[in-house]
Amino acid sequence: MNSPTAQLAAFAAGLRFDAIPGPVIRKTEDLLVDWFGSALAGKGSRAVETIARFAASVGPADGPSEVLISRSRTSAYFAAMVNAAASHVAEQDDVHNGSVFHPATVVFSPALAVAQALGASGQQLLTAAVAGYEVGIRVGEFLGRSHYKVFHTTGTAGTLAAAAAVGNLLGLDAPQMQHALGSAGTQSAGLWEFLRTAADSKQLHTAHAASAGLMAAYLAKDGFTGAAQILEGPQGMAAGMSSDADPARLTQGLGTRWATTETSFKYHASCRHTHPAADALLQVMQAHDLQPGDLARVVTHVHQGAIDVLGSVTNPATVHQSKFSMGTVLALIACFGHAGLAEFDQHFDDAATRDLRERVSMAFDAEVDGAYPQRWIGKVTVTTTDGRVLQGRVDEPKGDPGNTLSRDEITAKALRLAAYSGAATPAAMQAALDDLWAVARSVRVGLLLKNAT
Amino acid sequence: MNSPTAQLAAFAAGLRFDAIPGPVIRKTEDLLVDWFGSALAGKGSRAVETIARFAASVGPADGPSEVLISRSRTSAYFAAMVNAAASHVAEQDDVHNGSVFHPATVVFSPALAVAQALGASGQQLLTAAVAGYEVGIRVGEFLGRSHYKVFHTTGTAGTLAAAAAVGNLLGLDAPQMQHALGSAGTQSAGLWEFLRTAADSKQLHTAHAASAGLMAAYLAKDGFTGAAQILEGPQGMAAGMSSDADPARLTQGLGTRWATTETSFKYHASCRHTHPAADALLQVMQAHDLQPGDLARVVTHVHQGAIDVLGSVTNPATVHQSKFSMGTVLALIACFGHAGLAEFDQHFDDAATRDLRERVSMAFDAEVDGAYPQRWIGKVTVTTTDGRVLQGRVDEPKGDPGNTLSRDEITAKALRLAAYSGAATPAAMQAALDDLWAVARSVRVGLLLKNAT
Repeated sequence: MNSPTAQLAAFAAGLRFDAIPGPVIRKTEDLLVDWFGSALAGKGSRAVETIARFAASVGPADGPSEVLISRSRTSAYFAAMVNAAASHVAEQDDVHNGSVFHPATVVFSPALAVAQALGASGQQLLTAAVAGYEVGIRVGEFLGRSHYKVFHTTGTAGTLAAAAAVGNLLGLDAPQMQHALGSAGTQSAGLWEFLRTAADSKQLHTAHAASAGLMAAYLAKDGFTGAAQILEGPQGMAAGMSSDADPARLTQGLGTRWATTETSFKYHASCRHTHPAADALLQVMQAHDLQPGDLARVVTHVHQGAIDVLGSVTNPATVHQSKFSMGTVLALIACFGHAGLAEFDQHFDDAATRDLRERVSMAFDAEVDGAYPQRWIGKVTVTTTDGRVLQGRVDEPKGDPGNTLSRDEITAKALRLAAYSGAATPAAMQAALDDLWAVARSVRVGLLLKNAT
Repeated sequence: MNSPTAQLAAFAAGLRFDAIPGPVIRKTEDLLVDWFGSALAGKGSRAVETIARFAASVGPADGPSEVLISRSRTSAYFAAMVNAAASHVAEQDDVHNGSVFHPATVVFSPALAVAQALGASGQQLLTAAVAGYEVGIRVGEFLGRSHYKVFHTTGTAGTLAAAAAVGNLLGLDAPQMQHALGSAGTQSAGLWEFLRTAADSKQLHTAHAASAGLMAAYLAKDGFTGAAQILEGPQGMAAGMSSDADPARLTQGLGTRWATTETSFKYHASCRHTHPAADALLQVMQAHDLQPGDLARVVTHVHQGAIDVLGSVTNPATVHQSKFSMGTVLALIACFGHAGLAEFDQHFDDAATRDLRERVSMAFDAEVDGAYPQRWIGKVTVTTTDGRVLQGRVDEPKGDPGNTLSRDEITAKALRLAAYSGAATPAAMQAALDDLWAVARSVRVGLLLKNAT
């Protein structure tokens, strides 16, 4: 039996450090450090702290794995759950464009927790992460655009990504990994409906994906079986949750195309669907030396996915919801030159922001939509108060592979995120970052944050 | 806002013991005792024990709630998870025909665990169970037949049923209950694909529904928000997982129609889709005094749902898979007069069973399909070896509300199930059953199985 699911499982089970090209490993290190900052940024978020309290109330009070926002220790299951909840809330974690999937939160959270529980090496952690990225991205691509219209791919594909990463760490063989994917896929969930009322579900989706995926892998290690073709089978994920699934995407270039390296870092602290337009607006404002008061109207030319996800957010009531408001994001860009965590927290509901927000609209654009999701083109048409009509365009938003962040920028971003939430002092961060940048030489992945604050 | 989801949530939050008619309470007591037997029947099942080992490895080693198969104690979360895994594996737990949903496993497992954790009364436990049944059944009816073609409704609707039961016990107000349903629905999962290879997922589905639903309710109690219209919203469950959802079903007769009382007990130890035909075969064999050797051919006239679920099981490889084989079930009925746990274990793969199995086929029947799922009509056409063509028919299979089990039959069934698995001695069972039949007078739900075995 050599079904697409079987091939994908065999790849994830068999992946070893030595088979991964150096540039892929270095990118994975970048992604790990970037994830660490996002995980710390979740400290103090009501939604995240609520999940953390639940985990503390029903989970063990000690264990081998680290809850980063509290520096408490518990079992790998709950550390994965809470760290995954924490690392997606600031909307600063990474994204893979083609799959519209945020891999880090659902891959590194369980992988770190299990690596700590097993005493795995840094190379094993990185290898497991690559297995998780390669599987999750391909599952997201496979499920396609119809899936993403209703389902939060990071929650759904993320459950399989978590299982693949943990399964690789546990040393599952290929049949066991196929069972793990089966058990993960049959728990796969996450609906966009929460966006309509700015509810907390996004944090639950990543918490659920990480913990359910971890459970699927542990169960498989202990002989529990899952569907053989959970992805492409006639009563599997695609049958239930997609109308344009393409099984060829599951196995395309396994071992030669490293999808991990296609992952983008997030520069703005908002939904990725706003980034291309944000960069395009910045480009046109800089090119023509425009001030916020010069903007009479901004039309963003977008792909259908942006309208699906952002379209219902017209009057954002919370900081988190405002990160899904195209108008708010572009207003902050216009006023401050970037839209970071501090700008959202302090200015998302300013009168000036609200005024600019109302001048921004989205319009479907066939070119942008046709290029999506492989390329996220940003196009805006600005009408100025003095009647000029100006075009802005970027072909690759900041943070994408061709316009990426340097290691210094990644380090600085992580330090900013930790400082923002107060999760760690600069000294504690520096120690942790030193460890993380050297993780490939670590014989045993330890705690990232020692007792010092 | 008075959406269907809001109305359903308000009902589940506001339900109190005094508002529930006496016959509904008595039926709920019947269902509780029936569930208890099924939960014990799971002891020793490889799939169940694997989930129990995982729970023990990542959960706390002590707590207020009881894992019935091991008599260990842990947090409510893991007790709910393991008891739910255990109570669906013998295929003897209850079913609601109209929703094709097995309520007990996903309602009583979390409700008992939380009642024990809170020190709730027996009346509170029964009230919570009714809230869970009423919600879960309506969600299953709402999601409709298109949903059930791919999704295991007990896993999906079950997550909301568990949240409703636990939310009622926690005293959630109506808005909190709506958030709980939102958080439950966005974790709702379970695909039929596992049937194709007889994998263990069915036990994972109920474990997942019980634990994820419990988590959703606890989160809501602590202020965590969920989608307001997770069921009928444009990116909610129906949008993603159904093509024939009817929101009117969510609120039909709330407080006047007690769907709990429509629940059927399972008499045969097999998938419910086989029961009408099994009873019809028994009827024609008794009417014409037929022996197994007289059967040349048996055509079962069935609804499409039976073909969807059972159609792929032509050559069952395991005891569990054989419970989804129409041919195996009818063969056991023909040979032994009933198809209980012992018949499956000892005879599912006998030469005589296999021979008879091959003589059984399914044919779509418009009358049966039209009545389904409100009525599960059994119709068979038997061709005898001497050339007679005989018809068998039952309009209400054994265990349905109009053909129900007495309390003596329910007690006897629970004793059989416990004896089958060895989970409790007759003496321990008698003590537990005495407590359970008197649960409405219990001021505090305690452990069901004391230290004695």
